[in-house]
Amino acid sequence: MSKSAGCCKRFLHYAFDYETPKTLVIPSLGVGFVFRFTQFLVVIRGLIGWGCGKYKAYQDTDTVISTVTTKVKGFAFTNTSDTEPRFWDVADYIIPPQGDHSFFVLTNMVVTPKQVQSRCPELPSPSTICVDDCNCVEGHSDPRGNGIQTGLCENYSTTARTCEVLSWCPLEIDTKLPEHALLAAAENFTVLIKNSITYPKFNFHRRNILPHVNSSYLKRCEFSRLTDPHCPIFRLKDIVSEAGEDFQDMAVKGGILGILIDWSCDLDWWAGECLPKYSFRRLDNKHPVNNVAPGYNFRFAKYYKTADGEETRTLIKAYGIRFDVIVFGTAGRFSIVPTIVNLGAALSFLSLVPVVADWFLVTCSRKRDLYSRHKTTHLTEDADSASVRDFSPSLSLMNLISTD
Amino acid sequence: MSKSAGCCKRFLHYAFDYETPKTLVIPSLGVGFVFRFTQFLVVIRGLIGWGCGKYKAYQDTDTVISTVTTKVKGFAFTNTSDTEPRFWDVADYIIPPQGDHSFFVLTNMVVTPKQVQSRCPELPSPSTICVDDCNCVEGHSDPRGNGIQTGLCENYSTTARTCEVLSWCPLEIDTKLPEHALLAAAENFTVLIKNSITYPKFNFHRRNILPHVNSSYLKRCEFSRLTDPHCPIFRLKDIVSEAGEDFQDMAVKGGILGILIDWSCDLDWWAGECLPKYSFRRLDNKHPVNNVAPGYNFRFAKYYKTADGEETRTLIKAYGIRFDVIVFGTAGRFSIVPTIVNLGAALSFLSLVPVVADWFLVTCSRKRDLYSRHKTTHLTEDADSASVRDFSPSLSLMNLISTD
Amino acid sequence: MSKSAGCCKRFLHYAFDYETPKTLVIPSLGVGFVFRFTQFLVVIRGLIGWGCGKYKAYQDTDTVISTVTTKVKGFAFTNTSDTEPRFWDVADYIIPPQGDHSFFVLTNMVVTPKQVQSRCPELPSPSTICVDDCNCVEGHSDPRGNGIQTGLCENYSTTARTCEVLSWCPLEIDTKLPEHALLAAAENFTVLIKNSITYPKFNFHRRNILPHVNSSYLKRCEFSRLTDPHCPIFRLKDIVSEAGEDFQDMAVKGGILGILIDWSCDLDWWAGECLPKYSFRRLDNKHPVNNVAPGYNFRFAKYYKTADGEETRTLIKAYGIRFDVIVFGTAGRFSIVPTIVNLGAALSFLSLVPVVADWFLVTCSRKRDLYSRHKTTHLTEDADSASVRDFSPSLSLMNLISTD
Repeated sequence: MSKSAGCCKRFLHYAFDYETPKTLVIPSLGVGFVFRFTQFLVVIRGLIGWGCGKYKAYQDTDTVISTVTTKVKGFAFTNTSDTEPRFWDVADYIIPPQGDHSFFVLTNMVVTPKQVQSRCPELPSPSTICVDDCNCVEGHSDPRGNGIQTGLCENYSTTARTCEVLSWCPLEIDTKLPEHALLAAAENFTVLIKNSITYPKFNFHRRNILPHVNSSYLKRCEFSRLTDPHCPIFRLKDIVSEAGEDFQDMAVKGGILGILIDWSCDLDWWAGECLPKYSFRRLDNKHPVNNVAPGYNFRFAKYYKTADGEETRTLIKAYGIRFDVIVFGTAGRFSIVPTIVNLGAALSFLSLVPVVADWFLVTCSRKRDLYSRHKTTHLTEDADSASVRDFSPSLSLMNLISTD
Repeated sequence: MSKSAGCCKRFLHYAFDYETPKTLVIPSLGVGFVFRFTQFLVVIRGLIGWGCGKYKAYQDTDTVISTVTTKVKGFAFTNTSDTEPRFWDVADYIIPPQGDHSFFVLTNMVVTPKQVQSRCPELPSPSTICVDDCNCVEGHSDPRGNGIQTGLCENYSTTARTCEVLSWCPLEIDTKLPEHALLAAAENFTVLIKNSITYPKFNFHRRNILPHVNSSYLKRCEFSRLTDPHCPIFRLKDIVSEAGEDFQDMAVKGGILGILIDWSCDLDWWAGECLPKYSFRRLDNKHPVNNVAPGYNFRFAKYYKTADGEETRTLIKAYGIRFDVIVFGTAGRFSIVPTIVNLGAALSFLSLVPVVADWFLVTCSRKRDLYSRHKTTHLTEDADSASVRDFSPSLSLMNLISTD
Repeated sequence: MSKSAGCCKRFLHYAFDYETPKTLVIPSLGVGFVFRFTQFLVVIRGLIGWGCGKYKAYQDTDTVISTVTTKVKGFAFTNTSDTEPRFWDVADYIIPPQGDHSFFVLTNMVVTPKQVQSRCPELPSPSTICVDDCNCVEGHSDPRGNGIQTGLCENYSTTARTCEVLSWCPLEIDTKLPEHALLAAAENFTVLIKNSITYPKFNFHRRNILPHVNSSYLKRCEFSRLTDPHCPIFRLKDIVSEAGEDFQDMAVKGGILGILIDWSCDLDWWAGECLPKYSFRRLDNKHPVNNVAPGYNFRFAKYYKTADGEETRTLIKAYGIRFDVIVFGTAGRFSIVPTIVNLGAALSFLSLVPVVADWFLVTCSRKRDLYSRHKTTHLTEDADSASVRDFSPSLSLMNLISTD
């Protein structure tokens, strides 16, 4: 036998000798049943958690990227005692006009026309009412006021005198908000929502206008959860109703309404089609308690120049409903990495099963002593001679903990 | 031996006696090879899934937060037969002017100047053509019409009579859209995109203007995928071309173009730099079939007051390209928690290897009988006397399932 | 014994015979300690990674969906040598007026009033200065210029002659930016930020106006990190200070300021309340090196019509601070799937412990030979007769690798 052959043989033994546990087969119905039942529980639980739940363990996920365009249609005619008769179209009541994921429909307003930079008496309030000029401080500006005081005390009305301010005059009196929304007719306006989404990780693109839908249907359809759940044209009144609100109520002081489009999808081929799910929810807090500045409004102005070059403006405090199209979703598609990770985690539970069965074997089974004796060899001084037959060297060292 | 010493000894035995499986070493090249090969497969597969894939198993991930500012430069001069000669600069054609992540470049339009609130005959269509006043209903408003009918039938032209409506008059005739985009010169406008991103979980901030780039380069550079892939200034024509579209085509009816900035990064120090990757994609559907309101347009108005205080407006139906800068990305960085989770999952696969090897051992190997007999002890009535020597008590209980 | 009974018995044996490893109990303090200590380490490490870290292994996570409304309050009066005295309110300095997640506060500006479409000499620069008409090319438009050249050379001032251009005239001279911000008073403006969030996966809704806060407090409070960390009203100066910037500095050339609201929450009932955390960060790059177009500005125009119908405009190059409200966050809630996945992964580490202890047993312990002999049975030719007693058939086949 040459040296290299011996070396090679030792390496082969080292690398390819296979070490396997010695096992004992126990023909006990009780233990066997516990073993199989535990195994069954783990597998069933694993399968349920694995593929039947909402979040599939074998899938990689990605978050949606989306673009939205909106286009409102409709017109209205207003003729109240306070205002002149007026016709309103899209260019008048949609602000901003672009129609992206958030659009505002004007429903009520306080208009203050012909404002110019000048001086006028403040609106009466405890801090602005004055008796004479001594009550007014030149240059003082109250954050809750409407301008910089000039130091004069002027007649606001026949009964009240207030400090004069430098401001856009006449001042806006926003307490005169109409009780019924001016553009009540806005409830019949319709909005077309076009939404394209992408899951970049999966290179998956989809529109909310479904492929099987034809153009003529799109021109006359209107969203309805029951009959037309995939029509992209929504009547404003329906949107507000679906959110559990009343349009006319909401129109007076304004509010924010979320149009939520859920694109959560299972992109595996065996799953069904990936379809958008619409839902609607009021996003601002309508309750008057614990609320600051309820409703939704903002001020904007249209600027004009008079013939002699002076700048005037029409200030509009616009109340209305802001519709926010919120697109969200997570898509999953089979991927090998999460599959392996989750499968591995599941497998390690199977390795717990023998632990349970062994515990049952040596604790609860009727013949636990018999099983224990065959299964376990105790390597102690006394047991050594009994259960170990081949040799008994230096067991005294073992007395470290087993001696009296 | 005192009682407490015995108790202590028993506890020590309980806590520190080590129970280890008895094993059998089998010097079989076949079984050993199956064992090592399966082990090798699992480890290799694990390593590939682990660190070489796109999604590193040892990393924690975070989603990008971003801010975008855009600034368009360029001017144009239009002089067509339909319109007056006019010079256009940024303040004229960029709507809204702020320049955030979405900006609109006006390329074509239908202008209806000098509209005032008044009455005029409707545009001719099957539902508006009338013979006399009986065909028109006062107060009726057709959603596809342009105003509220007054109940009169008026001459629209020398040949057609239509119902009169209350509206902004004259009515817009949007079928007269120029066939060639009015601002065809917009293709040479440039846009500077400034994008700052943050991965809050990793406190990582980065700009799309790279640190090594100097100001003078930035003032004259222009994005080109080949020569200047990191220049933040883009020619509009190039953006549209990269998306596989023709600018002049798209300019006529408008559209939406996505400028996608991908900040997916590996933030571990051994990975390379974190750089933005630009891509471009048309986001609206240009195909006329299965499409509603193709292209991209919206209406807005400029309001004026005449010398005698009457409000007039210029209605503009603006066609153009909306550029949406969409920033997305996921960053990963080494983190101990996912490392352990994934490593644990991988490890549990290694525990499967002996199962495979054992199965091969007792099923396929040539000496399976020999191995089986040494590996497995059957605790049955007959086998008991043969393989179990020390005792044989109460085996009759075991006959529960093994008796005939 | 019938045939079916035998078949049934065999099936019962196959299904319910329980195979368990034979084990050897070793009463060694050393090995036992290594075993228990390794087990202890794994469990402790597991528990730390499991529940004490930022990202709980037993939780499912979701990303926040949010809506923001903002409302700025405040007015200012400007009276500098360059401009006329003017009063500014919200409708003047907030652009766009809607108040969504991004709002711009005008702080400085270059105003060019009374521009009309006409011809005027270019601003002097090396490329526009001319001596006579020969230096100017009709129809030429320099991208850095301000209009289309008419081919004429005109007097720009008494000392300089430049090419005439067709443009909005007079041209804007934006080098005359005021050194001190015009609306320096903007630092005292306040902004109310209303933010509603949703975690759709958990059907969890929350507002940044906390339930226990009452309306009267909201009307007078002001955010302060120390005293009022949950007041939704912010003074602009404080926002800028918190971001480490100086308002007056930033107001001159403008900039972008991020108001970050972190809604990261642990939604399990045993965790505390879910509260927003505010932070502030300047998002643009203020350093003049490696920067293009520093600060933040944009141009917009107000359009007027003169009495004779000619369109004029006031061009405003607006400098100011854009405030971007950025809402982010991830919520976690106990979920069975990630719990099982992570628990499984943790468990598989426990299965490593015997491997470590066995290695210590046969390598480092003092009585390793004794333990090895009892633990491991070598199935070789020589050992066969010694350790294996029952039979010795056909061992020559095993000589494949063990022969010399």
